[in-house]
Amino acid sequence: MDLNGLAAAFAVGIAAFGSAIGNGMVISKALESMARQPEMESKIRTTMFIGVGLIEAIPIMAAVIAFMLLFS
Amino acid sequence: MDLNGLAAAFAVGIAAFGSAIGNGMVISKALESMARQPEMESKIRTTMFIGVGLIEAIPIMAAVIAFMLLFS
Amino acid sequence: MDLNGLAAAFAVGIAAFGSAIGNGMVISKALESMARQPEMESKIRTTMFIGVGLIEAIPIMAAVIAFMLLFS
Amino acid sequence: MDLNGLAAAFAVGIAAFGSAIGNGMVISKALESMARQPEMESKIRTTMFIGVGLIEAIPIMAAVIAFMLLFS
Amino acid sequence: MDLNGLAAAFAVGIAAFGSAIGNGMVISKALESMARQPEMESKIRTTMFIGVGLIEAIPIMAAVIAFMLLFS
Amino acid sequence: MDLNGLAAAFAVGIAAFGSAIGNGMVISKALESMARQPEMESKIRTTMFIGVGLIEAIPIMAAVIAFMLLFS
Amino acid sequence: MDLNGLAAAFAVGIAAFGSAIGNGMVISKALESMARQPEMESKIRTTMFIGVGLIEAIPIMAAVIAFMLLFS
Amino acid sequence: MDLNGLAAAFAVGIAAFGSAIGNGMVISKALESMARQPEMESKIRTTMFIGVGLIEAIPIMAAVIAFMLLFS
Amino acid sequence: MDLNGLAAAFAVGIAAFGSAIGNGMVISKALESMARQPEMESKIRTTMFIGVGLIEAIPIMAAVIAFMLLFS
Amino acid sequence: MDLNGLAAAFAVGIAAFGSAIGNGMVISKALESMARQPEMESKIRTTMFIGVGLIEAIPIMAAVIAFMLLFS
Amino acid sequence: MDLNGLAAAFAVGIAAFGSAIGNGMVISKALESMARQPEMESKIRTTMFIGVGLIEAIPIMAAVIAFMLLFS
Amino acid sequence: MDLNGLAAAFAVGIAAFGSAIGNGMVISKALESMARQPEMESKIRTTMFIGVGLIEAIPIMAAVIAFMLLFS
Amino acid sequence: MDLNGLAAAFAVGIAAFGSAIGNGMVISKALESMARQPEMESKIRTTMFIGVGLIEAIPIMAAVIAFMLLFS
Amino acid sequence: MDLNGLAAAFAVGIAAFGSAIGNGMVISKALESMARQPEMESKIRTTMFIGVGLIEAIPIMAAVIAFMLLFS
Repeated sequence: MDLNGLAAAFAVGIAAFGSAIGNGMVISKALESMARQPEMESKIRTTMFIGVGLIEAIPIMAAVIAFMLLFS
Repeated sequence: MDLNGLAAAFAVGIAAFGSAIGNGMVISKALESMARQPEMESKIRTTMFIGVGLIEAIPIMAAVIAFMLLFS
Repeated sequence: MDLNGLAAAFAVGIAAFGSAIGNGMVISKALESMARQPEMESKIRTTMFIGVGLIEAIPIMAAVIAFMLLFS
Repeated sequence: MDLNGLAAAFAVGIAAFGSAIGNGMVISKALESMARQPEMESKIRTTMFIGVGLIEAIPIMAAVIAFMLLFS
Repeated sequence: MDLNGLAAAFAVGIAAFGSAIGNGMVISKALESMARQPEMESKIRTTMFIGVGLIEAIPIMAAVIAFMLLFS
Repeated sequence: MDLNGLAAAFAVGIAAFGSAIGNGMVISKALESMARQPEMESKIRTTMFIGVGLIEAIPIMAAVIAFMLLFS
Repeated sequence: MDLNGLAAAFAVGIAAFGSAIGNGMVISKALESMARQPEMESKIRTTMFIGVGLIEAIPIMAAVIAFMLLFS
Repeated sequence: MDLNGLAAAFAVGIAAFGSAIGNGMVISKALESMARQPEMESKIRTTMFIGVGLIEAIPIMAAVIAFMLLFS
Repeated sequence: MDLNGLAAAFAVGIAAFGSAIGNGMVISKALESMARQPEMESKIRTTMFIGVGLIEAIPIMAAVIAFMLLFS
Repeated sequence: MDLNGLAAAFAVGIAAFGSAIGNGMVISKALESMARQPEMESKIRTTMFIGVGLIEAIPIMAAVIAFMLLFS
Repeated sequence: MDLNGLAAAFAVGIAAFGSAIGNGMVISKALESMARQPEMESKIRTTMFIGVGLIEAIPIMAAVIAFMLLFS
Repeated sequence: MDLNGLAAAFAVGIAAFGSAIGNGMVISKALESMARQPEMESKIRTTMFIGVGLIEAIPIMAAVIAFMLLFS
Repeated sequence: MDLNGLAAAFAVGIAAFGSAIGNGMVISKALESMARQPEMESKIRTTMFIGVGLIEAIPIMAAVIAFMLLFS
Repeated sequence: MDLNGLAAAFAVGIAAFGSAIGNGMVISKALESMARQPEMESKIRTTMFIGVGLIEAIPIMAAVIAFMLLFS
């Protein structure tokens, strides 16, 4: 378990960085759209949830790989 | 299984970073377009799903390669 | 516990950097939207809390991995 | 199969990053154009599919090279 | 306590950098909003405090890890 | 076949990254122009195909070199 | 006291860089807001002081860690 | 043929990256100009072909050097 | 006094870089605000002095650490 | 001919990258100016040719040095 | 005097880079403000001198450390 | 002639990159100015030639140093 | 005189880079202001000379250190 | 004359890069100002020559140091 710890840290660190930035873009734009079109609030919120779920698909896979590296 | 762990972490980490940014661009633009043209909501949502699927083609291939590196 | 300390520091450091930037984008946009549409204040605040929670999903996982690396 | 794993990870990782960004640019612009000109929706969607196919030409070649490196 | 000192410095340094930038974005936007909407001053200030607290969640965890690395 | 694998991965990876970004710029601008001038759609599409072909000239040469490095 | 000096320098250097940029953003925006809304001058100045205090929380912790590394 | 493979990959990779970006700038601007001034279409296309030829002068030289490095 | 000289140089160099950029942002914005609102000149100048003092807090601490590293 | 191959690749690669970007800037601006002022087309084209020649002066010198390194 | 020369060069080089950029921002903004408000010329020039003095505080400290490293 | 080849390649490569970007800025701005003010065409062209000459002063010196390194 | 040559080159190179960029910002802004306010030409030129002198204070100190490193 | 060649190449290369960018900024702004204010052409050209001379002060010093390193 020498280099695998570093590898797990790299995978989960970069994935956390990317998903934070990507989610930040989506959620801040959702807030802006809700403030501009209050009557579409529930639809925008639904799409925002779906979008966040789609964005986190690969980063969660990266976290899984990090856990597998940790316990191998 | 020395360097392969690092390689798997690199592949899945960079792929997660890229797909998060790319999906973030598409979904935030989709939210913006939906707020501007509420009557086109379902078509935009459909195209958004297709686009997210197309974007994730290569990153998922990268995740597959990462799993193959892990179990080799 | 040689390289694992460095790995934990890398994972939690990059995750802290990313989540700070991502949260900063969301919260600053929420403040801007609240100042522009005072009557939607509570809804924006609720969405902001959900968004911050979603953003911190992967970084907290990174912190967990960092703690696991530290105590392994 | 020492350094080849790292090489495969590099090739497929960078290719996934690039194709995600490039596809993100094309698809988000397509969504924007569809919202602005609803009557041209099918033509824009067709061109978007062709464009995504053209963009993914070299990244898929990179993935092929990564698989070849993995099984050599 | 060879490499752990470097690791602690890395974790707390990057976290301090990130939280300073993230807080700077939130507080400068809060000041701008207060100057534009003086009647919402207290609500914006409350949200700003909550936001700063949420942003500092992971960086403080990084600082804790740095202290743990220092005293291990 | 030690370092050549890495070299092939570098060449095809960077080329895939560049061609994806370059094609993304051209195709997204083509979509925007088509939405603004619907009557010029076929000419823009033709020029777009020629442009994509010209852009991919050197990246394909890079892929060829990568295959040559792989089979040498 | 070999590597710890370098670590202390890294921690305090990056923290100083980050806090200078973050404070610069807040104070320059405060000056701009004061010039635009002279009647809110004292409130903006108070919020600016609080904001600067919040920003410097983690960098001062980094400086403390640097001193601890120096005297260990 | 140790380091020369790496050198060839570097030369052709960076050249492919540069020429893709440069061509992308020229061709996307050409598409934009054609959409704005449809009556100048043929002249713009001619200048675009000349420009692409001029841009690819040095990258092709780089590819030639890469082939020479490969077969030396 | 081998590596400590390098460490001192790193700390004071990065701190000088950061404080120069941060102060530049504050002072240039102060000059701009004074030119736009000449009647608020003394208040802006006072706030500018306070702001510069607050910005230089951590960089001066970095310089102190550099001197301590030099004379240890 | 060990390190000289790498050196030649570096020189011609960076030069190709730079000249592609520089030429791209000039030619795309020339296309834009031609579309805005169709009556000045020939003069702009002439100046564009001169400019491209001047830009390629040093990159071609770099290519010459690369060839000299290759055959030394 | 082996590594100390390199350290002195690093400190004074980065400090010179930072102070040049910072001063450039302040002085160019001062010139712009003078051209827009000719009647405030002497006050702007005075504030500019003070600002330049404050910016150069830490870089000069870096230069002092560089000289100390050189003569130690 | 070991490291000198690399040094020559570095000098001429970076110089070629810089002069291409710098010349690109000047010539593209000259083309834009000519299209906006056709009656000043010859004066702008003259100044452009002088400017290109001044820009290439140091890069040509770098090329001279590269040739000297090559033949030493 | 082994590493000191490299140190001198680093110091003077980075300082030259920084002072060129900083001076470029000041002088280009001065030219712009002179063209907008022709009656303030001499005052702007005087301030520009003072500003350039202030900017070059630390870079010249870096050049002095470089010469001292060269002749030590 | 081992490492000194590399040092000379570094110094003159970075200086050439910086002076090309800095001169490019000044000369392109001068061309723009001349096109906007044709009656101030000679004064702008004079200031441009002085500015280019001031910018090249430190880069030429870097070139001198490079020549001294070459002939030491």
